[in-house]
Amino acid sequence: MALQNTRQGNYPEWYQNVVTAADMAEISSSPGCMVIKPWGYGIWERIQRILDDGIKSTGHENCYFPMFIPLKFFQKEAEHVEGFAKEMAIVTHSRLTMKDGKLTPDGALEEPLIVRPTSETIIADSFSKWVKSYRDLPVLVNQWANVVRWEMRPRIFLRTREFLWQEGHTAHADYQEAEAEAKTMLNVYVDVAENALAMPVLKGKKPEYDKFPGAIDTYCIEAMMQDGRALQAGTSHFLGQNFAKAANIKFQSKEGKLEYAYTTSWGVTTRLIGSLIMTHADDEGMVVPPRIAPYQVVIVPIIKDEALRDQIETYAKNIGKQLSEQTYAGEKVRVKVDLRNKESMDKGWEWVRKGAPLVCEVGMRDIEKNALMLKTRVKMNTPDWKASVPVADFVAGIGERLAVVQQEMFQKAKDRLLKNIRTDITSAAQLRDYFSKSNAFVDGNDNPVAFVRGKWSGDPATEELLKEMKISIRCIPEDQSGTVGKCLLTDKEATMDVIYARSY
Amino acid sequence: MALQNTRQGNYPEWYQNVVTAADMAEISSSPGCMVIKPWGYGIWERIQRILDDGIKSTGHENCYFPMFIPLKFFQKEAEHVEGFAKEMAIVTHSRLTMKDGKLTPDGALEEPLIVRPTSETIIADSFSKWVKSYRDLPVLVNQWANVVRWEMRPRIFLRTREFLWQEGHTAHADYQEAEAEAKTMLNVYVDVAENALAMPVLKGKKPEYDKFPGAIDTYCIEAMMQDGRALQAGTSHFLGQNFAKAANIKFQSKEGKLEYAYTTSWGVTTRLIGSLIMTHADDEGMVVPPRIAPYQVVIVPIIKDEALRDQIETYAKNIGKQLSEQTYAGEKVRVKVDLRNKESMDKGWEWVRKGAPLVCEVGMRDIEKNALMLKTRVKMNTPDWKASVPVADFVAGIGERLAVVQQEMFQKAKDRLLKNIRTDITSAAQLRDYFSKSNAFVDGNDNPVAFVRGKWSGDPATEELLKEMKISIRCIPEDQSGTVGKCLLTDKEATMDVIYARSY
Repeated sequence: MALQNTRQGNYPEWYQNVVTAADMAEISSSPGCMVIKPWGYGIWERIQRILDDGIKSTGHENCYFPMFIPLKFFQKEAEHVEGFAKEMAIVTHSRLTMKDGKLTPDGALEEPLIVRPTSETIIADSFSKWVKSYRDLPVLVNQWANVVRWEMRPRIFLRTREFLWQEGHTAHADYQEAEAEAKTMLNVYVDVAENALAMPVLKGKKPEYDKFPGAIDTYCIEAMMQDGRALQAGTSHFLGQNFAKAANIKFQSKEGKLEYAYTTSWGVTTRLIGSLIMTHADDEGMVVPPRIAPYQVVIVPIIKDEALRDQIETYAKNIGKQLSEQTYAGEKVRVKVDLRNKESMDKGWEWVRKGAPLVCEVGMRDIEKNALMLKTRVKMNTPDWKASVPVADFVAGIGERLAVVQQEMFQKAKDRLLKNIRTDITSAAQLRDYFSKSNAFVDGNDNPVAFVRGKWSGDPATEELLKEMKISIRCIPEDQSGTVGKCLLTDKEATMDVIYARSY
Repeated sequence: MALQNTRQGNYPEWYQNVVTAADMAEISSSPGCMVIKPWGYGIWERIQRILDDGIKSTGHENCYFPMFIPLKFFQKEAEHVEGFAKEMAIVTHSRLTMKDGKLTPDGALEEPLIVRPTSETIIADSFSKWVKSYRDLPVLVNQWANVVRWEMRPRIFLRTREFLWQEGHTAHADYQEAEAEAKTMLNVYVDVAENALAMPVLKGKKPEYDKFPGAIDTYCIEAMMQDGRALQAGTSHFLGQNFAKAANIKFQSKEGKLEYAYTTSWGVTTRLIGSLIMTHADDEGMVVPPRIAPYQVVIVPIIKDEALRDQIETYAKNIGKQLSEQTYAGEKVRVKVDLRNKESMDKGWEWVRKGAPLVCEVGMRDIEKNALMLKTRVKMNTPDWKASVPVADFVAGIGERLAVVQQEMFQKAKDRLLKNIRTDITSAAQLRDYFSKSNAFVDGNDNPVAFVRGKWSGDPATEELLKEMKISIRCIPEDQSGTVGKCLLTDKEATMDVIYARSY
């Protein structure tokens, strides 16, 4: 009952198999867009709730800004931001009219509207109305929204034309406060990634040439997928006064001078669900960390004799009730008693593929022992994966048990990350050689291709060389080693350590 | 410090004054769209949370479907649904290109995409893939999303081009179950309107000619605004097999026959915030019911002497901490200690205009008495509105006090509703005469123009007559009086009681 493809056999197909087998999402009849199904959306809701708490506890409030951005706002941008991505959905008409029996666009707009690819421009426009004096600062807002980028090679969760995200936007009276804000929000993202998604990340900033257009600094978190590639899991931009100047966000300072505000923006997207899959899923299907699992415990009654159905289902419901009164991570435990009209074994496999953290099977033999048969998803295919556990012990220890699973999932991913950062590569030739090899799946490989931590001069000309090797600098890690020595790519002196990797 | 306009003086302007004074939303540079600001969005978040619980506790799960609907889906609809609203945003291009120094739409799409005005068609397309057998039914999903209808006369919250809503969509194996589902969800809406928004509603269904295009029945809730007009606050449609036939949602029945599923859809929107304003706000500004108030209690330190600031602020924070450990309606009390660098009096007025349910002012005199000066927003301009309350009593009784405010707000609105339904009108001439008068604000009027409960034959030809009188049949109430007698509009026998009113 394993997936059609394994990580080692065909990693991209395996990824798609997991999405389908866990019933998380599917491609849609709307070109390049996805349907996020209940199990996938339930995970997103948990991520939203936890991140939203983090956003609010750092002083931000939620708002909602229009999805349609007048073209002239981009014209402004185009003047000062070179290289802004221009693949976007453009609304040009406002009516459907029947012509020759066919519905046809009509009502051409005077000014085309862009479906937001990101909202810096339209939000800065609001900020310019809200901010008059230093007393109006800081402005600290966030929105949960859909955004559109016209991707030509869509992949579910990783790259679709429409996706969901949150985007925070702030304005401040001074440089230091705005810069600190961008870093604070990066730390909120680190916390959610590591403590909710159980996904270890490297924290750093992007090289100059890879910053968000118009930013002074782009901070990012990078995670290592099971094929060794990096995935950018969140970004936080310190925008300096660039956007404030374009949108005229001016304020009267304490000293009575008219100054431009300093702004930031930061976001994470439903792409996080893709990174979650590639961090935790195995060859049997998805594995969801307890903190963001729509159900943390699923109870499956095993019915072999219809005459005993009521007794077994009552036993199952009773365990479910007890569990749902317990707490884990400050919330009631989320329990599903699966009473659907399906074969017990099919149900069991379904929850394996969905990756519910704990599945309890209960049948007559368990009732006799006042026990349950516990299957811990993350331990599947190890000797520990099945165990008979007394109901009383299980209920009393559920919070602790979920915490252990969460911690083990994080530790497993953390070990993979730490083990697969090479630090012994010192020349472009070695780097080229290393990344010329390939592996579908890093675990169990003697010498897998994943991340290289190496020295760099900061010379932007090296971007071309890296492109040719099909790798990139993922980030300049926050923790630097006190760099001395040669740049790995050029003859120049190194000025920093960076992470080189293939990426999504 | 009252608003520029009163309800009696200029109701439409008063409405706009409330929105602005409470800082809930504003018009945007994106034509016809609004920016929902933190206080307005915070109210929406509370409504979302409570309604989402109601949607989930009735067995539904959240999903997300694409915002872009291929034109061909509407072509299908156009064939079987006459009169579908065709004012929609149409995406025709996918790229911006610089031409002669101007960004210009480029990359024309082969098939235009419609920004969803509602998602029946695209969701039915998914359902047709999901449903094969009666075992796959029911399908019970919901999404929280933005939608677009190309309104030509936008009004904040009431009618904007883009707005936010939830839309539930379900598919069932039989007629009765689907019909019951549509009614269940109407009841969820009644519960949220009455118990969370403190807004009494009339529950019923729409006349045949005013149903959602393609529906068998459209159920609705109608609320009475303070100017006597009706506002449709939520709808639930029983769609029969119409959409299933258009989208080919077929399933194998228990008996092995291939049948079309029965579907429903139901939604409420950010328009609810507009109805909330017109139910509760007064000539001083907004009044928010405790259950959906972003802050239920605001504590404002009154600083007259800077030397005492620390002492007073510490006292305020201490009360805030104690309150936030109390509960109301199953949740921790939401408290704001307002320490902003602003004049105390300005803060006080700000919270009056925003309509925070309870505002506590604390100064040196309160500290001496270990008390606080409580202002209960809904009682403003009555002798009870200010009272000195001992801190210990206030903290211990906060849950009960908020419950009383919530109940009083509901009762006040309910009294207005019941008092302003005329039942003594029996002819078209009387009806015309009644609705030829006008009043801006029903409260305190001897004979205000609001709702008429009267008899109707069900003749669709009467729609024209009603249009001419600038009124409509808002709903056929669920509770019928056992109708005997003449239709109010025609010579025919009446078959039902209906509610006649002006509306938003």
